[in-house]
Amino acid sequence: MPTTTPALSVSAAGERFAPINLERRDLRDNDIRIDIQWAGICHSDIHTIREEWGTANFPLVTGHEIAGVVSAVGSGVTRHKVGDRVGVGCLVDSCGECEQCKNGFEQFCERGSVGTYNSKGYDDEITQGGYAQQVVVSERFVCHIPDGIDLDVAAPLLCAGITTYSPLKRWGARPGANVAVVGMGGLGHLGVKIAAALGADVTVLSRTTAKSADAKEFGAADHLATSDPQVFKDNAGRFDLILNTVSADLPMEDYLRLLKPNGALVSVGLPNEPYVIAPGKLIGGNKVVAGSMIGGIPETQEMLDFCAEHGIGATVERIDASQVDDAYDKVVAGDVRYRYVIDTSTIKP
Amino acid sequence: MPTTTPALSVSAAGERFAPINLERRDLRDNDIRIDIQWAGICHSDIHTIREEWGTANFPLVTGHEIAGVVSAVGSGVTRHKVGDRVGVGCLVDSCGECEQCKNGFEQFCERGSVGTYNSKGYDDEITQGGYAQQVVVSERFVCHIPDGIDLDVAAPLLCAGITTYSPLKRWGARPGANVAVVGMGGLGHLGVKIAAALGADVTVLSRTTAKSADAKEFGAADHLATSDPQVFKDNAGRFDLILNTVSADLPMEDYLRLLKPNGALVSVGLPNEPYVIAPGKLIGGNKVVAGSMIGGIPETQEMLDFCAEHGIGATVERIDASQVDDAYDKVVAGDVRYRYVIDTSTIKP
Repeated sequence: MPTTTPALSVSAAGERFAPINLERRDLRDNDIRIDIQWAGICHSDIHTIREEWGTANFPLVTGHEIAGVVSAVGSGVTRHKVGDRVGVGCLVDSCGECEQCKNGFEQFCERGSVGTYNSKGYDDEITQGGYAQQVVVSERFVCHIPDGIDLDVAAPLLCAGITTYSPLKRWGARPGANVAVVGMGGLGHLGVKIAAALGADVTVLSRTTAKSADAKEFGAADHLATSDPQVFKDNAGRFDLILNTVSADLPMEDYLRLLKPNGALVSVGLPNEPYVIAPGKLIGGNKVVAGSMIGGIPETQEMLDFCAEHGIGATVERIDASQVDDAYDKVVAGDVRYRYVIDTSTIKP
Repeated sequence: MPTTTPALSVSAAGERFAPINLERRDLRDNDIRIDIQWAGICHSDIHTIREEWGTANFPLVTGHEIAGVVSAVGSGVTRHKVGDRVGVGCLVDSCGECEQCKNGFEQFCERGSVGTYNSKGYDDEITQGGYAQQVVVSERFVCHIPDGIDLDVAAPLLCAGITTYSPLKRWGARPGANVAVVGMGGLGHLGVKIAAALGADVTVLSRTTAKSADAKEFGAADHLATSDPQVFKDNAGRFDLILNTVSADLPMEDYLRLLKPNGALVSVGLPNEPYVIAPGKLIGGNKVVAGSMIGGIPETQEMLDFCAEHGIGATVERIDASQVDDAYDKVVAGDVRYRYVIDTSTIKP
């Protein structure tokens, strides 16, 4: 029998969030019911619900940075038990059988992975996200949150954390590496913390150095203002890796100039305009331009374990259900330090 | 005392090659004199001498695919002795002290590496290349050619071989990997041979499949004609690595579509137009666009050893000194299978 749970829903693009009773499916054999405590606000939630990325399926509940406690499990569940502290990120299903799934890259499932909200599940139902008091998810997509991390600061790790951890690991953030993080918002501030914990020498690149005190606290050794063209001359050839977390259209060749030979410029933000890059800027230094999209489930668990070990959580502003619309506007304005998390107990239909 | 050696020289852009007596410097302590037997013709030689890449220093002797035998050594030379079979590629000097040199990436020397021809040496002399019977080179830039490779087919390995070997190694050409090589000319034919010897499953992508019999002989398992748009649909998501050896302007997004998630499109050819790539084409699959430029000296030696072990040499057309101008026109027309090598004993001033 399906159950209902208080949730925050939007009925059409441009409308405000309203509390509703959302139906969740009855537990299947491999399902887990999670009592959600905190849900992070990701910029993707805003793009989706404002239909900036195409048509959305309304009414819609967003949220894919979910942290809570297991309250029930299906008969076949083996990975988690009632009472476990758990998280769910951007994915809730995939085929589990293709090369990508088998290699732990469920986000690239050949059948098509199922997003946590606004996605058609393999049962043809549209998925509804984590701005709610409960969610039902197949156990394969539920990660353990170690005791070392509070659930409020853990929630944003499920999207922003893995989105930065995955490229930092792949592209060599390690002791001895000079790593720059472009932008210090929701993604970037976790990129700085994780890169520093991985042992890299971290520099923040942002338009101004207004957040320098925070950058230092997060583990950055340096902070450069990209509004100053001289910065690109003075720091030419400095970095092994640049992790670009912003969605603004950047002058890619200027940033490529900051790389050492064999260095990589890896973007996780999605700007509007295409990259335009003279081939010689890559060839004349064995340079790399790459993209990275969230991460698979095994790596998400690895990231949570790493963050617990290193005492890393997101830096958050806690809000209640009535503040979500306002928080969306503030995120768009860049007025958040550094991630809003919703106390889901305040959702009252 | 400097010595002179027969060489092929061009006196101005647009002029033909003429035999001259070229002065080579007297041996310094760490210098090696090489009696050149074969010199390969690289497309870079043509671009340089026709001033398609900027002003050249005339009179000029090109050639940076050099194979021969040591005929004299300076008093401090330890790496090679008279009678050794050796090769010289695109580089003849670098500072030897910077991070790049110390890591074996002499091509990215922070002081600036010195090219084998048309480059100003640290002694302020303009370097003169390998279309000659002798050359004098610092021992650090002289590689050993193992007995398993004849000198004529070894010569092109010094540029075309290392240019393809280096990115194939870095980007994962290995057993189990699906590797495509775009273009099967001087670079590409060696890319196919080397990728196959590294154990990868190799596919050639070229405008037509006219050279399919050769592709198979070189080790390719498949050959696709990129003039057929359907090829890009039928082979979407097939390759782990695409090595692009052509200088034509390719539709990059079409080629990115052929990559698996986490795959890399690596170019060694220099087209005229910038790459234009929608960021989502990289992010939505963790994809990589990279460049690669020749290789450092330790890796060049590794490549020569690998080629000897696997019986790999270039497939060459042997020519004498009088045929070089004609060969240049043929290279530009794509009419060479697959590298011209000059028998330097035929140079008669």
